[in-house]
Amino acid sequence: MQLSRETCLAMDAADPLAVFRDSFDLPDRMIYLDGNSLGVVSHEARRELTATVETQWRTDLIRSWNTAGWVDWPTLFGDRIGALIGAAPGQTVVADSTSINLFKALVAALRMNSGRKVLVTGSDNFPSDLYITEGAAALFAGIERRLVPAGGTEDDVIAALDESVAVLTLTHVNYRTARIWDMRRLTEAAHRHGILVVWDLAHSAGAVPVALDEAGADFAVGCGYKYLNGGPGAPGFIYVAERHLGIAVNPLTGWLGHAAPFDFAPDYQPAKSIASFICGTPQILSYAALKGALNIFERTRMEALYAKSQALTSLFVDLVESRCAGAGLTLVSPREPARRGSHISFAHENAYALVQALIARDVIGDFRAPDVARFGFAPLYNGFAEIWDAVQHLVEVVDTEEWKRPEFTTRKKVT
Amino acid sequence: MQLSRETCLAMDAADPLAVFRDSFDLPDRMIYLDGNSLGVVSHEARRELTATVETQWRTDLIRSWNTAGWVDWPTLFGDRIGALIGAAPGQTVVADSTSINLFKALVAALRMNSGRKVLVTGSDNFPSDLYITEGAAALFAGIERRLVPAGGTEDDVIAALDESVAVLTLTHVNYRTARIWDMRRLTEAAHRHGILVVWDLAHSAGAVPVALDEAGADFAVGCGYKYLNGGPGAPGFIYVAERHLGIAVNPLTGWLGHAAPFDFAPDYQPAKSIASFICGTPQILSYAALKGALNIFERTRMEALYAKSQALTSLFVDLVESRCAGAGLTLVSPREPARRGSHISFAHENAYALVQALIARDVIGDFRAPDVARFGFAPLYNGFAEIWDAVQHLVEVVDTEEWKRPEFTTRKKVT
Repeated sequence: MQLSRETCLAMDAADPLAVFRDSFDLPDRMIYLDGNSLGVVSHEARRELTATVETQWRTDLIRSWNTAGWVDWPTLFGDRIGALIGAAPGQTVVADSTSINLFKALVAALRMNSGRKVLVTGSDNFPSDLYITEGAAALFAGIERRLVPAGGTEDDVIAALDESVAVLTLTHVNYRTARIWDMRRLTEAAHRHGILVVWDLAHSAGAVPVALDEAGADFAVGCGYKYLNGGPGAPGFIYVAERHLGIAVNPLTGWLGHAAPFDFAPDYQPAKSIASFICGTPQILSYAALKGALNIFERTRMEALYAKSQALTSLFVDLVESRCAGAGLTLVSPREPARRGSHISFAHENAYALVQALIARDVIGDFRAPDVARFGFAPLYNGFAEIWDAVQHLVEVVDTEEWKRPEFTTRKKVT
Repeated sequence: MQLSRETCLAMDAADPLAVFRDSFDLPDRMIYLDGNSLGVVSHEARRELTATVETQWRTDLIRSWNTAGWVDWPTLFGDRIGALIGAAPGQTVVADSTSINLFKALVAALRMNSGRKVLVTGSDNFPSDLYITEGAAALFAGIERRLVPAGGTEDDVIAALDESVAVLTLTHVNYRTARIWDMRRLTEAAHRHGILVVWDLAHSAGAVPVALDEAGADFAVGCGYKYLNGGPGAPGFIYVAERHLGIAVNPLTGWLGHAAPFDFAPDYQPAKSIASFICGTPQILSYAALKGALNIFERTRMEALYAKSQALTSLFVDLVESRCAGAGLTLVSPREPARRGSHISFAHENAYALVQALIARDVIGDFRAPDVARFGFAPLYNGFAEIWDAVQHLVEVVDTEEWKRPEFTTRKKVT
């Protein structure tokens, strides 16, 4: 079938998830393909935030820790995210940031496997994760990092595992390529050597089905501001498998991880539950928006979302490769839909300028150094016709060489 | 002079700071004496939060990292808080929570003084601070904690210092008693032994003048949700003296502390600036409310705020001791105004029930185990006549034995 805008409109009309777009408040005329970086505002997020400011902070003030249950938000919201990542209740908590949660998990795991001296990760892991592995390893004498080269396969990772390895940590969906690691296979391979595994789900949660319990994962972390739509810098989450609770020790021994925080006892006694992975006072306003955003996920299933995600990313790949053939765009993401997350990256020698030219046309993707144009597809609010339109803009930007304008080629600070 | 409600009204009329009450949106009929636990909503905090949701998150979306300057908020707001705590620009950053920032400071300091094996603090320090000293010390071999007994004086602290001590950490204003440590004297005494000093300003920032640079402090941390009115769980801050920047290493090596976070380099290179004490992505919605709340402080001076704070706390002490004499209330806070922060604690064998009975009358203080009723006075929005009224409620609660009702004596979860 020849793809046309009409085909795409028909796909939207047949999409059972299309109704969810009305739950979000997208800017007019914008084609937003960056939900993998910052999800959009939903009406429910805004409503919860307003209720938290007006009814809770403004009116009930300090009493809201009890009356609004603020004190339970980290574990309550943790369980709600747990439901999206294959974690039974009582193993996930919302707290701090992805990087801080990764630090907690890595230090806990390195202590649990304290006789071992190697930490394995991929050299194409998200840079902040690499930095945190450096910081965590530096706290222990003689820990060596073993990096699987960029683009390595599951076999390459497995070849790096042996009895000297304490911890394996990987990001489930690669931030640049969208490539998905086989979580179950790698976790099982690691466990055969007694290795603990820490998964970063930053680009998975809310877009790709994850089965932490089934895969036997030990720890996982992730963030609330990408596909979960929890707002800019929304708090992160951390999962600790039930079998490790009461054993794994959070190095950030703040009062809200204490077994009885409001007893004000002089000594730290960690909670026996996942609450022990909380540290200080939660940033409630940021939690409030996440609370509303999570409501939406309760009206659908991750499998349905991922099916649409695969259709969206496949359409984008097909359209770019057919309509921009010869433009020098090379697919960086896996071609097989089931092997990738919910974004698509193309390499191009002028990727930076292409992305800037698209942004000027209100088609929002992002650039990742050195040469990648990245486009995220959020199955809750992106549609098929807008992908057609985005590619139409790309065709025009390429055909007219619009991207060569100095305002697009001059590098600015990019996030 | 015999104190009367009319005297208090006259004090309000003569108060040059009374005008600031209109900057806040207090609930009707509530006498809120818990701003030391959670500050109230200001119109500017609400306005900034709304702008951040509607103009930035909703409309500019991911571009707001640049267009709204989100990426610079940690250092920008850090400098604004720095101005309130005697820190020249470039030494303070808003990030994470007080507990996490204390962890960063303690680990950095323990590494800088790595030949030494003792960490000194007070056993009546805030419990979360004690817990964090445990957690940080546990990362190093053979670190011993030396606790100055509760109620110890500056002389007692100084007696605990010697060349074996790596770090001294204290909370400037005690969370229970409001007692102020002599920051300059203790810092200088510590420095004579080569000890690094970490101050917790949780109950100081926004209420009590602090002169970090003048005192020669090494590190300081604090929170945004008490007297700074930044909202529930507002982000914390950390100060690192300029002479230590580039030397002190943040153990939480997240990407936003990197010298070039958006280069996505594989290795961690800390920024040479205070930005190195940032870790992961900031919780922007929580920062937004703090941003607005900080505006108000730019229209006054800390010395004026503290003068009023002393007048408020002195009035409260005088009224309670004169009007509730014989009720079994014993002043726990220092009697000399200059030796205390901005809250007042009275011990009472039924403190819990007294506080509950007052809360039922919309007079909000809090209880701190085992026997303390604590009342905070925020010079920006508390007035003198409402202190009269609060004490009038206390007189009635005591005289009528209202506090003996079962709904007040039965212990619930208290925050």
